[in-house]
Amino acid sequence: MEPIEQLLQIAHKATPAIALASNQQKSAVLNRLADLLLEREADVLRENARDLAQLTDDNPKKDRLLLNTKRLSELASAVRQVATLPDPAGQVLLERDIRPGLHLQKVSVPLGVVGVIYESRPNVTIDVAALCLRSGNVCVLKGGKEAAFSNQILVDLLHEALAAEGLPGAIITLLPNDREAVNTLLRAERWVDILIPRGSDTLIQFVRENARVPVIETGAGVCHTYVDTDADMNKGVDIVVNAKVSRPSVCNALDTVLIARTMAERFLPLMAEGLRPWSVEIFADQAAFDILSKSGYPWLQKASADDFGREFLSLRCSVAVVDDLDAALEHIGQYSSRHSEAIVTENPETAERFLSAVDAAAVYVNASTRFTDGGEFGLGAEIGISTQKLHARGPFALEKLVTEKWLVRGNGAVRN
Amino acid sequence: MEPIEQLLQIAHKATPAIALASNQQKSAVLNRLADLLLEREADVLRENARDLAQLTDDNPKKDRLLLNTKRLSELASAVRQVATLPDPAGQVLLERDIRPGLHLQKVSVPLGVVGVIYESRPNVTIDVAALCLRSGNVCVLKGGKEAAFSNQILVDLLHEALAAEGLPGAIITLLPNDREAVNTLLRAERWVDILIPRGSDTLIQFVRENARVPVIETGAGVCHTYVDTDADMNKGVDIVVNAKVSRPSVCNALDTVLIARTMAERFLPLMAEGLRPWSVEIFADQAAFDILSKSGYPWLQKASADDFGREFLSLRCSVAVVDDLDAALEHIGQYSSRHSEAIVTENPETAERFLSAVDAAAVYVNASTRFTDGGEFGLGAEIGISTQKLHARGPFALEKLVTEKWLVRGNGAVRN
Repeated sequence: MEPIEQLLQIAHKATPAIALASNQQKSAVLNRLADLLLEREADVLRENARDLAQLTDDNPKKDRLLLNTKRLSELASAVRQVATLPDPAGQVLLERDIRPGLHLQKVSVPLGVVGVIYESRPNVTIDVAALCLRSGNVCVLKGGKEAAFSNQILVDLLHEALAAEGLPGAIITLLPNDREAVNTLLRAERWVDILIPRGSDTLIQFVRENARVPVIETGAGVCHTYVDTDADMNKGVDIVVNAKVSRPSVCNALDTVLIARTMAERFLPLMAEGLRPWSVEIFADQAAFDILSKSGYPWLQKASADDFGREFLSLRCSVAVVDDLDAALEHIGQYSSRHSEAIVTENPETAERFLSAVDAAAVYVNASTRFTDGGEFGLGAEIGISTQKLHARGPFALEKLVTEKWLVRGNGAVRN
Repeated sequence: MEPIEQLLQIAHKATPAIALASNQQKSAVLNRLADLLLEREADVLRENARDLAQLTDDNPKKDRLLLNTKRLSELASAVRQVATLPDPAGQVLLERDIRPGLHLQKVSVPLGVVGVIYESRPNVTIDVAALCLRSGNVCVLKGGKEAAFSNQILVDLLHEALAAEGLPGAIITLLPNDREAVNTLLRAERWVDILIPRGSDTLIQFVRENARVPVIETGAGVCHTYVDTDADMNKGVDIVVNAKVSRPSVCNALDTVLIARTMAERFLPLMAEGLRPWSVEIFADQAAFDILSKSGYPWLQKASADDFGREFLSLRCSVAVVDDLDAALEHIGQYSSRHSEAIVTENPETAERFLSAVDAAAVYVNASTRFTDGGEFGLGAEIGISTQKLHARGPFALEKLVTEKWLVRGNGAVRN
């Protein structure tokens, strides 16, 4: 067996150790980890500096890679928060006698081995490990090579926290930085139960196309907000501006505004005024362009076909004028990545039709798409937003790190 | 767009028609279908005969392909039974105000388009279509070419039942019989939400390795029964015999008996007597062989390495002597397909350890693995037994033909 596969086999063998650990033990590991993140700050920052030194100052990865006192302290708080969350495993989900003397239970159990492939953010190492520990899962981590020193010291701290409770280090397994490790992981369905790619669309596509282990896709968000004929225009402006500017780099940020034709003349200039303080670049279709160019909005361009269905992840958005609700639904059906979609309308029938017709993880009426988030939804920390339909849709939080198991207890029962 | 992809796009466009149909409408379609299966018996049997005529009399597919009065009547009853099951879609799974004036609901909704790839059994056409209709899903069927005439007439009846309620035929789409149809379907993630292969291990492996659409694996069952040191031997014999002989061709049938060393001398001859009336062929490891050859069991052979981890699907099984529970768990961990596993023991601690340590969809104490079945578990009809961990594990019944959707209703809410 090749070395990477051996590591995965050892990780797999560690599944009972963490699955059968007591709730108290798992909380103790998490709280010890939080302590260590603060106690060993100097060591962590030193190793992080070694990673940072390899990037030029203008490399956009630098900010994602950076750890500092504030970030470590937030990370430690997040870990303590996860320690307080209820364990999703060990719940009895269904219970019945299927015949006299034959008792059936469906219980939640840890998935087993959770593989995560990610890029430059070293905080993912701690976030993912904490959620896996809380839910009784082994976790196999494959981080970006630019974060190698940072990830190694964070995993050292995790191992120290595990050892303090007598638990094996293989519960958190960090894979080496070579391409072969990824290829082996993608095809290790014997040892790994689920794979979660976190990062760029390219990474996610690569994993999706090459994995034989089942994948949870936490994909791109191409998010629309449709401002309806019956919209309250002030709400519309507030929602569009918030969805675009409050954190443009994340997947639940607005990408495209659709505006009902009868409202466009009045709404678009108001919207542009709202976006102006953030210098948001607008890619407008012909009808929207004609209206906005009259209002003298400075960062206006004509949209090309590629600007629809595009995830901007920056202070840019596209705008299209549509005839009515049906046209908006058709546009969304064609371009949505099925993440988060919103309508602004005062008409309850229109709102309900939008809610039922749009095929997306989260659908909003008169609210910003920025709310799609495990924390905002009251689920605690999350590993990402699932845009697929199986197992988890929307925030992939602690509650989804389990599977089911049917337990049947009899006294000699046989089937006729 | 090529013709097969066009069919898939049309099927996808039909999703709102069935998702928004009323419960009453969907029940009416199902009951009309059941009527038609009886009224048009002569037509169905004529088309079925055309398929059967293409197979030689000794072809084992012949029985799987065969429809007759009894089978059609059972099929009609099964459809009427599905019509009475509760709709799994439209349930509110969670509901809370995430801040004043911002209301969150998690609801169950149909998956959308369910693709099923299967082999020679034409009853699958009706079973799958009925479950999809009940749960508000469109279904795309790719049956075996040897059942082409049978499948076509069954789908004609389905279309007639849909038309009687004013629903489009694309809700049940039968793909043509060419290899290209399968390849297009496997990669149609834009139009198809989930794929379920039903049939041989070869088919399932092919789908698993080539699909980009998420797959539900309803895989092979390599099922063990471990007879422990503390077993009641009479229960052990009853359970082993039932698990092996009551229906050997199905996935929950027994494949391997593991027997604790201290019990082997007494148990194996009793077990052999139990299996003797069915002439079950036993592939025994050396220790079991030595014991059984003394008892003069006529259908005894030495096991080769391949006989462990083998799904027999016939009146054959393998037997191994193991030292103790740990050795049994290790054997099962190595060879199990994670379907159904059983222990026979009177020791409650041993039983609980087995239940928690075995990683399988269904784990049994003192009962036959033959109970792993949607009907037996009280879930109604099923599409198969899922041996994977995501979305569905164990019987893949009506309740799993839905996904979740988050609905958020606000009054202008924005995120800070």
